[in-house]
Amino acid sequence: MSFVNPLDQLIRRLARLPGFGTRSARRAVLHLMKNRDSLMLPLANDMADVARHVRACAECGNFDTDDTCRICRNPDRDQTRICVVEDVADLWAMERAGVFSGRYHVLGGVMSAIDGIGPDQLRINYLVEKVTNGSVAEVILATSATVDGQTTGHYIAEKLEAVKVNVTRLAHGVPVGGELDYLDDGTLAQAMRARRQIDD
Amino acid sequence: MSFVNPLDQLIRRLARLPGFGTRSARRAVLHLMKNRDSLMLPLANDMADVARHVRACAECGNFDTDDTCRICRNPDRDQTRICVVEDVADLWAMERAGVFSGRYHVLGGVMSAIDGIGPDQLRINYLVEKVTNGSVAEVILATSATVDGQTTGHYIAEKLEAVKVNVTRLAHGVPVGGELDYLDDGTLAQAMRARRQIDD
Repeated sequence: MSFVNPLDQLIRRLARLPGFGTRSARRAVLHLMKNRDSLMLPLANDMADVARHVRACAECGNFDTDDTCRICRNPDRDQTRICVVEDVADLWAMERAGVFSGRYHVLGGVMSAIDGIGPDQLRINYLVEKVTNGSVAEVILATSATVDGQTTGHYIAEKLEAVKVNVTRLAHGVPVGGELDYLDDGTLAQAMRARRQIDD
Repeated sequence: MSFVNPLDQLIRRLARLPGFGTRSARRAVLHLMKNRDSLMLPLANDMADVARHVRACAECGNFDTDDTCRICRNPDRDQTRICVVEDVADLWAMERAGVFSGRYHVLGGVMSAIDGIGPDQLRINYLVEKVTNGSVAEVILATSATVDGQTTGHYIAEKLEAVKVNVTRLAHGVPVGGELDYLDDGTLAQAMRARRQIDD
């Protein structure tokens, strides 16, 4: 396509988004052209706005317009509990579920031998420092239930052994709405081992 | 998600793109945040640039930065042939295939009783006018092989009956790479009826 240059460039850049390819980017651009004032210009503004003003929170790693994010600034949130997550996406997932009222710590990934990511590339030292110097009572490890996620969790737990803090992790088990038939053996084994009394 | 306002707004707007939902928009935004300088800012600029400078060509309806598009301005393109397409996407598809060296006419949709789109909402009158007053030898109807597309094609062909111009349409048949087993009866019937001598 040699005939429309700025459009081509926009399509090429959009195609780099996850879940997009050239074909879907083309479709999106045509949709944007048809909704120029109601969608395309506002979207361009939003994007520039976010790119310029949103940054990672110096405390927890969440994204916000201020150096310290809304969650870290909120005095109503329990400062004695820290939930450790891999990524901002995981933090958002926890917030959507609305089951945690403490603060977060975003690692920025997991340790991975294959990708050459060691503990020094993650924000683990700062977490240990925060827990050592602060008044934290519980650290909840909410890394993924993958090999790398669990390895990272164990590493952090070990690092925190010297500190007087309660280290917990999310429960493993049958996902709500999940059918036993489709579950892997590992999950079933964990769910069986951690079975609970039916009382309340 | 009440905690990050500009991010929320960006996600909501991105989710309105075809093929995107809230979840994929969220993923895209996190990807953009990680590639702020290499992708997010340039993408925002591209989008604003296209929104401000790209418009529909007054002649054919294609998108370009000028009032008359590159194809209509190109003196090397055959002015006696006009290919009528529904949408700019179809024009782009024809150009990618590189099988047509004439000019285009974008209708801006097809006639549709259900959606209440009649011939007056499409750029049909202007096409007839152009063909009547110009030196056009052939009008190729490249509307989709759907009921609405074919109806629109027939309507245009009828409108052009009074004008001395050769009206053709794209051939129907087995798509290249297509398996007979998966083809519908209509396509097979058309392909059989329009079968050709194997000679060259």
